[in-house]
Amino acid sequence: MVSRCRLYFFSFFLALLAPSFALPPAVHHPLDAMTPDEYWKVYNTLNDAGKLGEKTIFSSILLQEPDKADVLVWRPGMPIVRKADAVLLTEGKSYEATVNISTGKLEVYTELKKDQAPVTEAEMHGYDDVLKKDPQVMEALKKRGINDLRLVTCYVTPAGHVALPEQTEGRRIGWGGCTYTGNAKFAWDREIPGIFFVVDMNAKKITRFSDYGIVPMPPTTSIYDADGGAALPGTKPIITSQPEGPSFVIKDGEVSWQNWRFRFRLDPRVGPVVNLVSYQDGDKRRSVLYEGGLSEMYVPYQDPEETWNSHVFLDAGEYFVNTGSGGIIKPLLAGVDCPASATFFSGTFFHENGTPYIRPQLACMFERVSGDPAWRHWDEDTYAVSGRPTRELVFRTVATVGNYDYLFDWRFEQDASIVVGVGATGILEVKAVKDQRADSPLSAGLAGKDTDGKEVQFGQLVAPGLDAVDHDHYFSYRLDLDVDGTKNSLMVDKLVPYKLPDSALGRHWIWAMKPEMVKTEGDAKLNTSIEHPAMWRFANENVKNDLGQFTSFEIMPGETGISLLPSSEWPQKRAGFSEHNLWVTPYSSKERYVSGVYVMGSKGEDALTEWVKQNRSIMNTDIVAWYTVGFHHVPRPEDWPQMPIMWHTFSLRPFGFLPKNPGMDLPMTP
Amino acid sequence: MVSRCRLYFFSFFLALLAPSFALPPAVHHPLDAMTPDEYWKVYNTLNDAGKLGEKTIFSSILLQEPDKADVLVWRPGMPIVRKADAVLLTEGKSYEATVNISTGKLEVYTELKKDQAPVTEAEMHGYDDVLKKDPQVMEALKKRGINDLRLVTCYVTPAGHVALPEQTEGRRIGWGGCTYTGNAKFAWDREIPGIFFVVDMNAKKITRFSDYGIVPMPPTTSIYDADGGAALPGTKPIITSQPEGPSFVIKDGEVSWQNWRFRFRLDPRVGPVVNLVSYQDGDKRRSVLYEGGLSEMYVPYQDPEETWNSHVFLDAGEYFVNTGSGGIIKPLLAGVDCPASATFFSGTFFHENGTPYIRPQLACMFERVSGDPAWRHWDEDTYAVSGRPTRELVFRTVATVGNYDYLFDWRFEQDASIVVGVGATGILEVKAVKDQRADSPLSAGLAGKDTDGKEVQFGQLVAPGLDAVDHDHYFSYRLDLDVDGTKNSLMVDKLVPYKLPDSALGRHWIWAMKPEMVKTEGDAKLNTSIEHPAMWRFANENVKNDLGQFTSFEIMPGETGISLLPSSEWPQKRAGFSEHNLWVTPYSSKERYVSGVYVMGSKGEDALTEWVKQNRSIMNTDIVAWYTVGFHHVPRPEDWPQMPIMWHTFSLRPFGFLPKNPGMDLPMTP
Repeated sequence: MVSRCRLYFFSFFLALLAPSFALPPAVHHPLDAMTPDEYWKVYNTLNDAGKLGEKTIFSSILLQEPDKADVLVWRPGMPIVRKADAVLLTEGKSYEATVNISTGKLEVYTELKKDQAPVTEAEMHGYDDVLKKDPQVMEALKKRGINDLRLVTCYVTPAGHVALPEQTEGRRIGWGGCTYTGNAKFAWDREIPGIFFVVDMNAKKITRFSDYGIVPMPPTTSIYDADGGAALPGTKPIITSQPEGPSFVIKDGEVSWQNWRFRFRLDPRVGPVVNLVSYQDGDKRRSVLYEGGLSEMYVPYQDPEETWNSHVFLDAGEYFVNTGSGGIIKPLLAGVDCPASATFFSGTFFHENGTPYIRPQLACMFERVSGDPAWRHWDEDTYAVSGRPTRELVFRTVATVGNYDYLFDWRFEQDASIVVGVGATGILEVKAVKDQRADSPLSAGLAGKDTDGKEVQFGQLVAPGLDAVDHDHYFSYRLDLDVDGTKNSLMVDKLVPYKLPDSALGRHWIWAMKPEMVKTEGDAKLNTSIEHPAMWRFANENVKNDLGQFTSFEIMPGETGISLLPSSEWPQKRAGFSEHNLWVTPYSSKERYVSGVYVMGSKGEDALTEWVKQNRSIMNTDIVAWYTVGFHHVPRPEDWPQMPIMWHTFSLRPFGFLPKNPGMDLPMTP
Repeated sequence: MVSRCRLYFFSFFLALLAPSFALPPAVHHPLDAMTPDEYWKVYNTLNDAGKLGEKTIFSSILLQEPDKADVLVWRPGMPIVRKADAVLLTEGKSYEATVNISTGKLEVYTELKKDQAPVTEAEMHGYDDVLKKDPQVMEALKKRGINDLRLVTCYVTPAGHVALPEQTEGRRIGWGGCTYTGNAKFAWDREIPGIFFVVDMNAKKITRFSDYGIVPMPPTTSIYDADGGAALPGTKPIITSQPEGPSFVIKDGEVSWQNWRFRFRLDPRVGPVVNLVSYQDGDKRRSVLYEGGLSEMYVPYQDPEETWNSHVFLDAGEYFVNTGSGGIIKPLLAGVDCPASATFFSGTFFHENGTPYIRPQLACMFERVSGDPAWRHWDEDTYAVSGRPTRELVFRTVATVGNYDYLFDWRFEQDASIVVGVGATGILEVKAVKDQRADSPLSAGLAGKDTDGKEVQFGQLVAPGLDAVDHDHYFSYRLDLDVDGTKNSLMVDKLVPYKLPDSALGRHWIWAMKPEMVKTEGDAKLNTSIEHPAMWRFANENVKNDLGQFTSFEIMPGETGISLLPSSEWPQKRAGFSEHNLWVTPYSSKERYVSGVYVMGSKGEDALTEWVKQNRSIMNTDIVAWYTVGFHHVPRPEDWPQMPIMWHTFSLRPFGFLPKNPGMDLPMTP
């Protein structure tokens, strides 16, 4: 008995010491993620209202964010009104619903006419039977000697809108192909080449069928050791540990780490959303970012054959429930995706039947010491170094959308900057081609001729007969920056050549910074340029620092890219955000998704490119930045069978926000 | 006695276990750094030949690299012929010498007529007495109430060549100003504003003097805690250790780590040079990079006043012996610049009197685990993650050139890529201005008008009265890539829009890759472009991989910049490499320094921009890449009093060099 007492005592002591960072589903704040109880409230309200048919699919259930103004004045103890937006698909018809969770009232329930529910995993694979029994498909399979239909899977992906005659209003049109997994170990190179069909998903019928001819399926090379082994001989262990636990504290859902404070939720549609990011500056808590998160992803493949250029994915909005049920983000593996000592967080999502579940390890948080200095200087006066080591806080999730895996990082730095990172890894999409080698002339599957008669290539062989098709990735980040308050302005500080008088002694040219306040959203379409560099800052004209400068945060791009397709192309009309690195709009609660709320079948009417045609003022008002992380991918054999991770980052950096380098007072241990 | 025996035994055992990585000065290979004995051989040979006067300064002593062909066939046990190139400055006259260290013969000794020795620290400060006693300077100091000349330091920096009438052939012309350190703690904001002079360094005379008027010197704000304190409250320790030591092995100067093999030396002029970088691919050892290192640095300041736009630094070639004696690289601080567990390496350099010294901790090497995956994939088939953690090998040095500190990294990755990083930190150069705040209108010290009458700014206030002047940084890396052998070709794979037939179903445009072999160096001036992206590859046309593709390595740029000044400007003629991100030339042993061997006073005749006018073929021959890491810096208050480190990187990435992702077989522990 005595020993038991001691144990209690000890546990109690530990509990006092341990920072409280578990995040069991609970609503502490208006922006917190939905809890299982809340999902059930949505389900029961809709069910009670008789809106759920036997075949109703819940395509989407999302927290409806309260008005920003209300959130900003909300304080602990005040009531929280919770609402959810749901999208249902029943027998091919789409419905949108708003459930007031707090009152249990169904506030909105409308059949969507023009708009459509996103495609779910169940729907994508729900046509398999119909498709593989279509006589045209059967014949194509037979021609290829594929008879065992149990190993054939035919799928449909959304056709977007490409102005097919069958794409009449509200009609769900998809297209797709089939895979054959006979003798496969991993299925990502088992696409049957040449088969392509367009599908009326409402009628469950193929409306167009093409067979581009037989290309032998190459042997499976997507083989990898799923387990991995022990360390290589000679490799000495590197041990990283935090024996006293992490330094961040999470209280009622708010993360505190050094001078940073923020909240986060895991959203089924866009993944991680950070909120109310603020910086503790002495006794002042200063606002930086009201909300930051992904808004959309756009992955167009680049191959002349429609079997492949039909691969145009708007992964966040169009394929709402990717791969399995409930959201784009997927579990992280401790020791691989995040250090084993990281803190992991579960997420609450929903099955396609509308019922909730809690999935573990969907996000992780850890402190990282890189071994790099925060700052350092060797002084010639003393022949000695001054400097400080640094650590950072990493908040990480991973989205898997079919073949690709994207790590999404929010990294909080001691120099008061935030680094946003996208790490792309996973498996390439590959097309079977005749070519076993890449010696010229290449087959039409791999190569063609440009207008000047020179060879162009559409992908690269990564294994014999296996063409990894060229493609792009664009990630649109919605960054509702609120630097020292909601009213901000976009400053574009151009670096321009500046002529000195002819009488000048040595130099006759310098460059100078030309600060410019951008007036309207129409003028706020910005690209990085090596010839015409500029800094992009979100400045508060109402708050000056002690030096009389507007306080601001800079968006500092990393290596990025823009779309090479003309804006006349249908995919570009739908994902036009990819045409610029940065767009800035006035805040609107209706403008959360850069390619629209309803992406399936959309013509791009509810998209950033359309919104900005209003040419609204963006001066000294609540503004939102849309930053595109973009890159083109010409695959390499070294990207097969799994891609080495490739990171792209951008930063939010204080500029005149603080009076000096905030890392000056860091300690001598990281 | 018994216990002592045991100790011996134990030590012996440890010695067997420990990798041998100490690098005491020794010549194991033709490219190894010069040893103290070799420096003495140079000294004694020159002394014996009667070439050393009482006031002779050794401006440069560098290993003369043997012919590349000889190095490539050299094997251990074969004789090594060692030579050194020296530059001497005696009473204003420059001499170049070549000493055959192996034979003790003075092979070359010539007075330089057109060219000049670089400026050394001793020379820069050697005019102090003359300058501060110049009547014009005296008067200017007096006007400012500065009477205590002991606290005044007047310095000279090279004027480069800017076509001043006094810049006749061989005449050493500099310019400079003075600092006053009365009541200072750290001296970097103690420049006396407004004083500027041009100096004939041979005659030790001021040839021109300007006084731009009195601006009060602002109070010292460059204050920082040199020691740093203990951890902040609530900050929990992060422990990183390698209890069994590092996994790399250095044998006879060659580093082996995982599949990488390379050598390095610390060069007094350009710092770290890596050599003979190869990749172990099964039982084949494959060449990647014969030599990689910095070639030059160029830091032009951008201010209309000649006191400030005269700050144009070619830090590697012009100021040969920076800050103190012996080379640009300076000691690293364990636990700040590199993890405390890193392995540190000394370097052997020379004093200005020609005598050698060994300085500790000039480079470090460490393995780093970031907590990021090498690759990972969550598969929808199994709902499970496969992946591997990763580690990297970092080889790091730091250059301090006056106020700025640059970390130079060579990072060797498990995906067979090499990341080259430049981390800029240290102290800003600041100019005293009248403005205590940045409210408009700003003084002429800070701002002016563009041709359209709009305000432009030349720097930013970082403290009251303290303008941190805009400037650029350009680092030219010389990369002698030898992918699978010396004969390589530059492929520029452009991504170009590609029109599909009108009959195409959904898409009418894709992009395609248009591979192009660049024929001559004149066509190999390349910039990154967001509108016209391209991949830059070093391909071996004589070696194909199993898929029939040329083996290659890609130079993948990171965020970078080019000069905004017209090429008609004198600094640009001397540092024209800053006008493009990538240049490619045929290998020439004479072309090592992008702004010439002799930079002091040069007109840019022996510079990359001139070399490429020959328009030599670069196809299927030994070629060299010149990659520029460039960035513009508009300083922030957050950059004061020490700058948070800012990293810029680029990568060398295998492309068709390996048959698959080399990280597939990594173990489950990093």
